[in-house]
Amino acid sequence: MPDDAKTWEARAAAHSFYGFTDLPSIRDRGTVVVTHGEGPYVFDTNGRNYLDANSGLWNMVAGFDHKGLAEAAKAQYDRFPGYHAFFGRMSDQTVMLSEKLIEVSPFERGKVFYTNSGSEANDTLVKMLWFLNRAEGNPQRTKILTRKNAYHGVTVVSSSMTGKPYNEVFGLPLPGFLHLTCPHYWREGQAGETEADFTARMARELEDTIAREGADTIAAFVAEPVMGAGGVIPPSEGYFQAIQPILRRHGIPLISDEVICGFGRTGQVWGCDTYGFRPDAIISSKALTAGYFPMGAVILGPTLADRLQNAVEAIEEFPHGFTASGHPVGCAISLKAIEVILNEGLLDNVRALTPRFEAGLARLAENPNIGEWRGRGLMGALEAVKDKDTKTPFDSHLSVSERIANTCTDHGLICRPLGQSIVLCPPFIMTEGQMDEMFEKLETALNQVFAEVA
Amino acid sequence: MPDDAKTWEARAAAHSFYGFTDLPSIRDRGTVVVTHGEGPYVFDTNGRNYLDANSGLWNMVAGFDHKGLAEAAKAQYDRFPGYHAFFGRMSDQTVMLSEKLIEVSPFERGKVFYTNSGSEANDTLVKMLWFLNRAEGNPQRTKILTRKNAYHGVTVVSSSMTGKPYNEVFGLPLPGFLHLTCPHYWREGQAGETEADFTARMARELEDTIAREGADTIAAFVAEPVMGAGGVIPPSEGYFQAIQPILRRHGIPLISDEVICGFGRTGQVWGCDTYGFRPDAIISSKALTAGYFPMGAVILGPTLADRLQNAVEAIEEFPHGFTASGHPVGCAISLKAIEVILNEGLLDNVRALTPRFEAGLARLAENPNIGEWRGRGLMGALEAVKDKDTKTPFDSHLSVSERIANTCTDHGLICRPLGQSIVLCPPFIMTEGQMDEMFEKLETALNQVFAEVA
Repeated sequence: MPDDAKTWEARAAAHSFYGFTDLPSIRDRGTVVVTHGEGPYVFDTNGRNYLDANSGLWNMVAGFDHKGLAEAAKAQYDRFPGYHAFFGRMSDQTVMLSEKLIEVSPFERGKVFYTNSGSEANDTLVKMLWFLNRAEGNPQRTKILTRKNAYHGVTVVSSSMTGKPYNEVFGLPLPGFLHLTCPHYWREGQAGETEADFTARMARELEDTIAREGADTIAAFVAEPVMGAGGVIPPSEGYFQAIQPILRRHGIPLISDEVICGFGRTGQVWGCDTYGFRPDAIISSKALTAGYFPMGAVILGPTLADRLQNAVEAIEEFPHGFTASGHPVGCAISLKAIEVILNEGLLDNVRALTPRFEAGLARLAENPNIGEWRGRGLMGALEAVKDKDTKTPFDSHLSVSERIANTCTDHGLICRPLGQSIVLCPPFIMTEGQMDEMFEKLETALNQVFAEVA
Repeated sequence: MPDDAKTWEARAAAHSFYGFTDLPSIRDRGTVVVTHGEGPYVFDTNGRNYLDANSGLWNMVAGFDHKGLAEAAKAQYDRFPGYHAFFGRMSDQTVMLSEKLIEVSPFERGKVFYTNSGSEANDTLVKMLWFLNRAEGNPQRTKILTRKNAYHGVTVVSSSMTGKPYNEVFGLPLPGFLHLTCPHYWREGQAGETEADFTARMARELEDTIAREGADTIAAFVAEPVMGAGGVIPPSEGYFQAIQPILRRHGIPLISDEVICGFGRTGQVWGCDTYGFRPDAIISSKALTAGYFPMGAVILGPTLADRLQNAVEAIEEFPHGFTASGHPVGCAISLKAIEVILNEGLLDNVRALTPRFEAGLARLAENPNIGEWRGRGLMGALEAVKDKDTKTPFDSHLSVSERIANTCTDHGLICRPLGQSIVLCPPFIMTEGQMDEMFEKLETALNQVFAEVA
């Protein structure tokens, strides 16, 4: 049978290997092949449309047919469709984007290194730290501290930074990647422990870990301001204010992984602005190009930029870089994406919509099978529980969050199951009406599934 | 001083961190900021143009202003500017590209997994192998065999696969990444050793390594058909014919890293076709999109695809994937790039130009300070030597290849210094006249530099 006589779904299954895909759901329901989009909606090959409350993968913050971004991409394809950033050569778009990134960063000066993804940016950060620590005579300073439930990517090293149990199937994390407690007060707080006590315990754990491992063995502490793929977990009250001084005292850089939070998701440009801390470097991706191009960036603040530059001067060359690092089309798109988010109303809309978003989450959290709503800006989660008082989760074989997400899909809403939570991260262009549609469809699905399982 | 009052070069230096850039050259000569291109030429902010005999970084095989590729990109930006390939959803362009890749691959069937770079593709391959070996009860089968001078990327794991001494500055390779001898007969052959003897020695080294390490500890042997960034090193005569049976006998997959060779560089679609071997998987990137978009792919042949699928079925989900894996714009561009290369004359031009390319290299190799020319298809190298008979290199402090490359740049030709070699990898759209211009400019530079240093 020629391929064009098969269904799209069969063609997809025949030749493509799916990542992060629940195979039982696929066996029951088949795959979806997507062809185009309008605003926050995507359309499949069967003509169905879905309100994508995921923004794709947190990244398509300007929706799926933003005219200005498409024009920026198309103009650059006509002008200069590709170049690298090796050998002291670089495109003009790359130069302009680095200027812009430092301008909008929390840093008064610094340097940008480009990658093609957040995974590569975190992997690059680790290589930079290993390199400069060796150059400074501290080759033992290699360990990376992150937190359980953190998500930092999928290369072997960024998987090792990720604090998810599923990486055991690869034999990861590598040695030297240590995961502290997830600062999720509702789930991790002990009986009778106040939130302030919990935060103090997180700080003590960090102190104890540094004492046990030795400060001079630790290269960095890397943290998302709000954990994203861990299930949208804002830090406990005062968390970053408690840990930053400890890290400073021990000379351990604090790196803010802003792949999800960066460029407006939490209501400020950076998640570190929202939580009032000052990182030594920022990892950026996703909204950096509004999902229109694969790009990541390591944005080094002045101290790390100077240390790295000095270390490189000594050996005359930094032997690292990706073929498409600083690709002119990606940089032209990113320049436009930053303009669109900061100056054409998207960040304003995040701020304007946040009260409605929080109210919607709070209303659904009145459901007896929702244990907690949580979030910041336009990222939120509802965590399903079997028993609200004891916070007891549903039996895992019920796959409750997958059932909710699949039921939402039946109703034309895409949202994401993460653990036993349902995560919402709507695009920044969403209207009030679309937000109401999102919550109505989600409520219908919640009621339907909880009636089946509760 | 506002940034727009500075030179482009100063703006680049202020905010961007250069990778793979010789800092002494930059201090002496400044950086170059590139704005646009025409065919194989690129133009800088000072209005100078350069014939880019590097094809950017081996990747811009259709030149810097290919109308068909730009139209394919622009049409997809109007249609659907971004989506992911998680959760059983995928764009129609992604489905079509996977079909096409399997169709043009050496495999009768197989599966494709997308990444954003060759680095990520090699890193993903290692994760896949570690995962399926653990799933099959062989968690100790983790070691990766590559060769000295091999280049497989810059993530921590793909750097560990890369057999270059510069990775020591990062403390790499990681344990378990073993580098065999580079199969470069001219440089590595012993006194009195025939090429057949040399190849047999390479095979014995592989046998001995497997015996020493234990076949059941080795996950794969990964090789570029022609080493690229090692300095364009074709294998010795009969190399792959000698090693493939050994790997088969020990059940060790042979992976062809076709990031540079794939899609026509060596005169066939794949380098493994040119060298007559049959890999278990192919790593692709670069010409896959003709450099118009960051993309990599792991193309699994039937055995590895089935083993991976079985391993995933057991745990219900493969917990791996990049946000932009299978990006619809990248896939639309790649579909067009494959069409352009295979059916619109580019591969034909590689074949037609190869004799002229080889003749040009051979003529320049008559220079008493060129020890060897080597290459295959449209990738070639000239290795500088102080003494042709003894193959003695120049003193490294003379930076002879950097001087040649910098002198070429002065004459409007971009070529690449690698070790003491000058590497040429012209775009597939090059004309005979442009090739003659390339060799003339290179000859002028060689004569100029050798007159200074020899």
